[in-house]
Amino acid sequence: METPRAVVAFQGEAGAYSEEAVFNRFGHPIRTKPCRTLPEVFALVNRKIVSHGVVPVENSLEGSVNQTYDLLLTSNVQVCGEIMLRVSHCLIGHPGAQLRNIRTVYSHPQALAQCQSFLASHKLKAVAEYDTAGSVELIKQRGSLTVAAIASRRAAQLHEMQVLAEGIEDQKSNFTRFLVLGSSDYQRTGRDKTSIIFSVKHEPGSLYRALRPLALRKINLTKIESRPTRTTPWEYNFFVDFEGHRSDQAVSEALAALEHTALFLKVLGSYPRSEDRRV
Amino acid sequence: METPRAVVAFQGEAGAYSEEAVFNRFGHPIRTKPCRTLPEVFALVNRKIVSHGVVPVENSLEGSVNQTYDLLLTSNVQVCGEIMLRVSHCLIGHPGAQLRNIRTVYSHPQALAQCQSFLASHKLKAVAEYDTAGSVELIKQRGSLTVAAIASRRAAQLHEMQVLAEGIEDQKSNFTRFLVLGSSDYQRTGRDKTSIIFSVKHEPGSLYRALRPLALRKINLTKIESRPTRTTPWEYNFFVDFEGHRSDQAVSEALAALEHTALFLKVLGSYPRSEDRRV
Repeated sequence: METPRAVVAFQGEAGAYSEEAVFNRFGHPIRTKPCRTLPEVFALVNRKIVSHGVVPVENSLEGSVNQTYDLLLTSNVQVCGEIMLRVSHCLIGHPGAQLRNIRTVYSHPQALAQCQSFLASHKLKAVAEYDTAGSVELIKQRGSLTVAAIASRRAAQLHEMQVLAEGIEDQKSNFTRFLVLGSSDYQRTGRDKTSIIFSVKHEPGSLYRALRPLALRKINLTKIESRPTRTTPWEYNFFVDFEGHRSDQAVSEALAALEHTALFLKVLGSYPRSEDRRV
Repeated sequence: METPRAVVAFQGEAGAYSEEAVFNRFGHPIRTKPCRTLPEVFALVNRKIVSHGVVPVENSLEGSVNQTYDLLLTSNVQVCGEIMLRVSHCLIGHPGAQLRNIRTVYSHPQALAQCQSFLASHKLKAVAEYDTAGSVELIKQRGSLTVAAIASRRAAQLHEMQVLAEGIEDQKSNFTRFLVLGSSDYQRTGRDKTSIIFSVKHEPGSLYRALRPLALRKINLTKIESRPTRTTPWEYNFFVDFEGHRSDQAVSEALAALEHTALFLKVLGSYPRSEDRRV
């Protein structure tokens, strides 16, 4: 009997940016499982139906993906990796189509929003669809040479369509950071990161005191974000990433101390840090 | 000669949610100046062409508005107020139109995304437009009883169109926090908030040390967010809101101490805090 192969769930259709992130990390080919929603990705990982999930957590233009943070708080999955992906949008049409003949462009609302200047300067009409890759399939079915989609280069290849223009996003520094979800941490590599969530009483100095165990041990924070808890008014959850693995002595001591101070502490996981840290 | 009246700039068209935020704060009628972009709002305030601007800074579902943060960092305007607005989307059609006959819905991509379940369950086709209120004007011009727009109740009234369904957003806890921009702080009221941006060296404990002057003086933080500076890799800007007015002794001492620790400190302004703090 064969060992079951790794399957990685992501939100979107084949050819979505999340799938590109999967291939960047796990290599190609790997079996992927497209999901309609983010909760579905978390559920499949949680029930061990897939080995991993890959979910977007923040984009350099749009900010944090709040739904992912909410799901990290409530689910039992572990974070075992991070992936930085440069998001570069392509205008995709039929083989033989030409940019000057395109009239209507289909894509996910966020991709349309990120290409507003390009669409305006070419006088293109934007039509919202639920998925970037799905909109490539849609225009393929239409068969018209006056329609195009905005999606990744890979989505064009997958559907044997043609890239009419590349890098059409208004701002070039468009990166998305994804987290890899699994059932356990990643082993220590020496260049690691740990993600935690904690809450403290809403009183002066509470965050300062919570950060003390990390600061005393010279642990480097790479991200901090506060968000009100949905349950108790006046209480905040802090989503914090820092350098180091939970199995490092300094980190494990700091987490033990933080557990004393905090109302609540959840270690999401330790994982090798991505070399591209531009988010 | 009359004193020049207040004019408040906002991004979007008449009837936009930002304009609703303006009326909530300044009362109605007040002269408003619709702007196409957020940088335009900042520029008009900066050049004193308008007395105030109102800009979205964070939404409870979508997270922070990164462009507003970037503009706060680089412009010279002062923050002199905050407004919390409950965002409730309406499906708007022609007088006499009926929900069961609607086929196509126009709106801003974010509003369409926030009403995905409603659109799916009624099998409505979503078409992206640049503005919620603008899409009401658009469907008015079309004159068809099978098209609708998603926008605020006020946008329907303004264009004499009919609300076909109300509160159609998937998640009801949809709040947007706006900041009021002006050329000076708001005077001390005793229930105030102050917004600052600072950066620290990217080294262990730097944020902890930066928060020390606030913690020592029992100043209550209400929001903290880190964002990489665009100029220097490995440096982070922290956007922090806390309770108190910059003219309070404790706050002014803390800011003086923070100025010593930080690489950079900018006080965006002090203002009365909104009573609805659900963001």
